[in-house]
Amino acid sequence: MDGRLGLGIDVGGTSIKFGLVSRDGTILRQHALDTHAERGPGAVLGRIVEGARLLMDSAETPIEGIGIGLPGVVNNQGEVAYPPNFPGWEVIPVADRLRPLLGTDLPITVENDANVAGYAEARAGNGSQDRNFLFVTLGTGVGGCIISDGEIWRGSGGGAGEIGHTTVDMNGQLCNCGARGCLEAYIGQRYMSALARERLDRTPESLVHAMVSSHGSLEPRLLDEAAVSGDRFARDFLAEMGVILGAGLASVMNLCDLHLVIVGGGMSRSEKYLLEPARRSMRMRALRSITGDMELRVSRFLNDAGMIGAALLAMERKHQVSKA
Amino acid sequence: MDGRLGLGIDVGGTSIKFGLVSRDGTILRQHALDTHAERGPGAVLGRIVEGARLLMDSAETPIEGIGIGLPGVVNNQGEVAYPPNFPGWEVIPVADRLRPLLGTDLPITVENDANVAGYAEARAGNGSQDRNFLFVTLGTGVGGCIISDGEIWRGSGGGAGEIGHTTVDMNGQLCNCGARGCLEAYIGQRYMSALARERLDRTPESLVHAMVSSHGSLEPRLLDEAAVSGDRFARDFLAEMGVILGAGLASVMNLCDLHLVIVGGGMSRSEKYLLEPARRSMRMRALRSITGDMELRVSRFLNDAGMIGAALLAMERKHQVSKA
Repeated sequence: MDGRLGLGIDVGGTSIKFGLVSRDGTILRQHALDTHAERGPGAVLGRIVEGARLLMDSAETPIEGIGIGLPGVVNNQGEVAYPPNFPGWEVIPVADRLRPLLGTDLPITVENDANVAGYAEARAGNGSQDRNFLFVTLGTGVGGCIISDGEIWRGSGGGAGEIGHTTVDMNGQLCNCGARGCLEAYIGQRYMSALARERLDRTPESLVHAMVSSHGSLEPRLLDEAAVSGDRFARDFLAEMGVILGAGLASVMNLCDLHLVIVGGGMSRSEKYLLEPARRSMRMRALRSITGDMELRVSRFLNDAGMIGAALLAMERKHQVSKA
Repeated sequence: MDGRLGLGIDVGGTSIKFGLVSRDGTILRQHALDTHAERGPGAVLGRIVEGARLLMDSAETPIEGIGIGLPGVVNNQGEVAYPPNFPGWEVIPVADRLRPLLGTDLPITVENDANVAGYAEARAGNGSQDRNFLFVTLGTGVGGCIISDGEIWRGSGGGAGEIGHTTVDMNGQLCNCGARGCLEAYIGQRYMSALARERLDRTPESLVHAMVSSHGSLEPRLLDEAAVSGDRFARDFLAEMGVILGAGLASVMNLCDLHLVIVGGGMSRSEKYLLEPARRSMRMRALRSITGDMELRVSRFLNDAGMIGAALLAMERKHQVSKA
């Protein structure tokens, strides 16, 4: 640790995380606020300012930069476009809007949330020894990031890495993007829950019924808990989802000649029941030039990856920097 | 044209093309030789030397570099690994092997054949005004190249752009790579011919029967000719293939945030009956952030793209250069 700090901010649909982060990815201080996305972009920016000021005022070491990860495409002008589940948000130059509110001349870096999470793994996490990999985050959506030669690969407009909307079955399940058979239409949490619920009706003996009754809803993590407890339905279902995930991953690895996948997000905890079948399916489907040294690893930073990556990116003053 | 020339060599499974090319992509002189791939790598290298010497000896302007496009992955050491349909060929450092045989100290550049073809379009062809696009070649195989910020994007080991082995239907048609439902397993010429033949048995009224009888085999270009002549079977079949192609393209554009596809190779001539349905299917399936300015164009250089791109790459002395 060299004493320098970045302020990393990860803006999610329900909460915003704020952290003071050192160059090696250590979080020195952190807190979270509700996003209040439903109150519109002005309110969200206000929450960012409120949470950021708290850490800026309390930092004992000077902060070198402020990094912000958000859902939605961050274009080459640093504008955040149409983040999903943020009503009223069109195209907003977040850094320019925040600067006067924060009253700072520190560099402010804005980047897509999956991109900053992948960057955390590249710089200080489980990909720090690798120049090229695919980062995938399994949450409500299925997001991703391509790390190319150690950097975030942004494609032509900043939207690269959208693995959730690659095809696994062009005539398959309808996705909310309008296409059929996107990876997210199977592995995204809402789809996975809906599909599991449908199947569960035909499996009265599964443990999952009781878990759903006590929990109120069928979240995918319950499936992992049931699988750990030996439930056959949950194990078979997660294995089936793993095979689909592996097919999607292999397709991307073939296209991009990537040999490593790092998986983050809520469902990355299901290593044995979801990721192990994914690994096998990926290995069976990838080109021979890739399978030799192919790996699938779980993220180091898990839910903190976005906050850490945003801070690291800001400290390196790369991408979408707004200077005073 | 500034008078400088590159020698571009495109090594295909049946013939090798040689050309003297200026910086703007004009071919000043060209010829071709049979590859004799079945005689092994030594014979192929011998043919390359024979054809290259012919142009080197006849060039009136000094040649600045020699570029070679070959099938197979060209790794980061400039070695050509397992080109498909080249028996006996394992991993060969082509530039190092050719240098003493050619007796030259010119830079020798070796790159994958789809990559050089895409590079020709990026530098002097239908993508010369665009910094980022996907190049796809529809031939025996389905190859491709990702142009990122004006350059070939090679992925971690030089194999990026393999769009033929991205998934369109994970439970679909078996591909010769071992996976199911790769784009190539539908759009690759052999698969397309086989599928058309199967369907044709149920369509005795099609014009294609007579064309196959006189031609001896069902090549996909016959389908385009039949479609142009008004044959319903051929039109429907190509439209179906176009929808599949469009699904594969949309998947890649979503992942890589690319807004332009340039299509080359034999079947790119079927603009109305194959590419137009592909364009529509792509538009229906791509993310909204992409569809606004999405385009599909036919290659400028068609079958000469590989030779031209190899020459241009050599003149710019980029990638895998072996220096004397």
